[in-house]
Amino acid sequence: MKPVRIGLLGLGTVGAATVELLRSNQKEITGRCGQQLVVTHASVRDPSKPRACDLSGIELLSTPDQLVAHPDIDIVVELMGGTDLAYDLCEEAIANGKHLVTANKALIAERGNELFAAAAEQGVAIHYEAAVAGGIPIIKALREGLAGNRINGIAGIINGTGNFILTEMRDKGRPFADVLAEAQALGYAEADPTFDVEGIDAAHKLAILAAIAFGIPLNFDAVYTEGITAITAEDVRNAERLGYRIKHLGIAQRNDQGVTMRVHPTLIPETQLIASVHGVMNAVQVDSDAVGESLYYGPGAGGGPTASAVIADIIDVARNLNGDATARVPYLAFNANQMRQLEHLPIGAVESAYYLRMQAEDRPGVMAEITGVLGELEISIEAIEQSEPQQHDTEATIIMLTHRVTEQQMTRAIDQIATLPAIRGGITMIRVEHFNTRQQS
Amino acid sequence: MKPVRIGLLGLGTVGAATVELLRSNQKEITGRCGQQLVVTHASVRDPSKPRACDLSGIELLSTPDQLVAHPDIDIVVELMGGTDLAYDLCEEAIANGKHLVTANKALIAERGNELFAAAAEQGVAIHYEAAVAGGIPIIKALREGLAGNRINGIAGIINGTGNFILTEMRDKGRPFADVLAEAQALGYAEADPTFDVEGIDAAHKLAILAAIAFGIPLNFDAVYTEGITAITAEDVRNAERLGYRIKHLGIAQRNDQGVTMRVHPTLIPETQLIASVHGVMNAVQVDSDAVGESLYYGPGAGGGPTASAVIADIIDVARNLNGDATARVPYLAFNANQMRQLEHLPIGAVESAYYLRMQAEDRPGVMAEITGVLGELEISIEAIEQSEPQQHDTEATIIMLTHRVTEQQMTRAIDQIATLPAIRGGITMIRVEHFNTRQQS
Repeated sequence: MKPVRIGLLGLGTVGAATVELLRSNQKEITGRCGQQLVVTHASVRDPSKPRACDLSGIELLSTPDQLVAHPDIDIVVELMGGTDLAYDLCEEAIANGKHLVTANKALIAERGNELFAAAAEQGVAIHYEAAVAGGIPIIKALREGLAGNRINGIAGIINGTGNFILTEMRDKGRPFADVLAEAQALGYAEADPTFDVEGIDAAHKLAILAAIAFGIPLNFDAVYTEGITAITAEDVRNAERLGYRIKHLGIAQRNDQGVTMRVHPTLIPETQLIASVHGVMNAVQVDSDAVGESLYYGPGAGGGPTASAVIADIIDVARNLNGDATARVPYLAFNANQMRQLEHLPIGAVESAYYLRMQAEDRPGVMAEITGVLGELEISIEAIEQSEPQQHDTEATIIMLTHRVTEQQMTRAIDQIATLPAIRGGITMIRVEHFNTRQQS
Repeated sequence: MKPVRIGLLGLGTVGAATVELLRSNQKEITGRCGQQLVVTHASVRDPSKPRACDLSGIELLSTPDQLVAHPDIDIVVELMGGTDLAYDLCEEAIANGKHLVTANKALIAERGNELFAAAAEQGVAIHYEAAVAGGIPIIKALREGLAGNRINGIAGIINGTGNFILTEMRDKGRPFADVLAEAQALGYAEADPTFDVEGIDAAHKLAILAAIAFGIPLNFDAVYTEGITAITAEDVRNAERLGYRIKHLGIAQRNDQGVTMRVHPTLIPETQLIASVHGVMNAVQVDSDAVGESLYYGPGAGGGPTASAVIADIIDVARNLNGDATARVPYLAFNANQMRQLEHLPIGAVESAYYLRMQAEDRPGVMAEITGVLGELEISIEAIEQSEPQQHDTEATIIMLTHRVTEQQMTRAIDQIATLPAIRGGITMIRVEHFNTRQQS
């Protein structure tokens, strides 16, 4: 099968990340997609500017018009931003029969209706997963995963900068202006933060989510928008005391009268999952009739997450170009001839921390015997507790948390501890996992 | 376009919910899918048994063999469970060129490799979104949404019964056996709870997730499985005190040596999002190179959520039957001629609870004046607090939480309160949302 040829409009953070990811994960991507995806052309405003990716094999075009008209390009990926030049180029690409992938939320929210009408006429695809909530495949969940549902409401933390600011205000009791300055220094917020903190960015995304959830045309102007600039550290503290957290939410709801779309600071009970979405992370909660409540969580911005969404879109288009409709998505995600035979490792090879609970004779020296076994096997202890024995009780309960070690090693230690004369009965072992929780920029 | 004809193997809870949902959401579904989906046939063991759905228009066949061979059926949906008869019927359906949708996790986990090989040979589709985590479109997220990523790990709460038991043990300090008995009475747990509490059900789902995440053949036998029956209320309390929660996790990880798949009770730091997944809800956390951490949350079982996944799969197949590859999924989820013109309501029409903060003169009677305004406008108060004024300070800060009322009404109240002579400066208003959090069975 011949490779799918991609032309990139723009080679900034997302463009460079897309080029790099297509290269570094080429085996994974070809294994899933069944055909090779190759960036053949890119157009950039300043060809002399250094780029954060390897440009070998990519022809740099000096004008974007050349790119959208190029006969050797199957898919045009628009990553330049803005709603004027970007619109004109997308329209031209469509007129030339190119399929389109874009990460441009403003373009879709404000001018999507026109673009989709043009694309329908030409019979080309437009995909825009990267336009909302970066790495979270929320467009796919709404358009396809929940396609059997009547969707009644959406509530999302869909601007990472705003959520970072509110999280910092809460965690450290700092005022808004301070945290905003830090967010700017960290690169989370632009020099002009209006789009983020006034909720315009979130309103773009909400208009897109509402349209695909409810089956209505895009209508960015109908979104009520209120920023977070008036929230004080005191409001955040008050909310906390009352059992709430303040989040900058985009909310779209539908009832018998019509639809409401609004972006504003909102108090949410701290027991709700979305209240625990911290820092620059995004989450979208969906209320639909068959499923009830579901939630989609992940990083909403940054090169890697956005490139992930762009490539998922490219793969969707490529699978259709392929034409083999019956197996558009391989049964097990990867094509059968690309399936790997990886080694299945035994549980003993797994590394984990451990929680141990045991009964032991209540006399001096028992603790030392137990920790002695662990020390010899080089298992270090994070916490150890011995319960006060009840009156007339000659046994105490010992609770331990260890640091990470292989299960093989832990099992050996438990076997040895069990043979100590002071130990009564079996030893309960429960694994402890600390999953990586990364901060994405 | 002619309707897509569906035959159901089995009409239990999920089958009946699928029939009902296809009927009640027919407009939504046709709007998204572009063609009508009609259940034309069903086969049931006992045709005289009453069914929880309207059977009009559905021909009941007395043997399943008739159904899988029926020339007027395009898609066979297998909802009978088990791995023997179900396997034989699916194989026969495939041999007859039918596309297949199944909710049967045991069938896919244990015999999926054979079925996929047969389906590839016949050029038919097999979809199985409902086999893992019910209403959460996690198969779609892994196979399509994250297709640009190298996936390194998956950790999931993928058995609702087990999570309900552990949540109850924690919330109410009750012993395992007690809670299990309640779960059985509530219908969350089967009379024979082995599949759930020993982790076999979770192991089936994990084998499927690992295969599609890592590109490896299904290998259910390689999953290490440990149940939650040995967890005591004391363990749950100890974990809590140490800052952890105990969850029954399915974990699949991949490193340079190979792959590990395991289901066992696990301590997770309470600060992690997945530690806040309570009751019968499910969640799957994915660690992948481009996106980093993402999480998918929703109900893992029950008629509605499972039917939602079954119908999403049917729509995926139908869109391919359609053949119009360029617009397989409509740009805005619904077909352009099915787009609605719903009313966009102003912010004043939104109903919400409110948080108010204001400065007021510190003298008796001020509170009465403010609450008087609210009372007259029929706005009831959930909480009201007045800060102790600082020394020499003649102003106090008043914080209020109201119950739900339209924004129009609230704005009127704020305007009136602002004119009270005791009020100093502006009044801060922040909206309070309590999203429905439902318990799914």
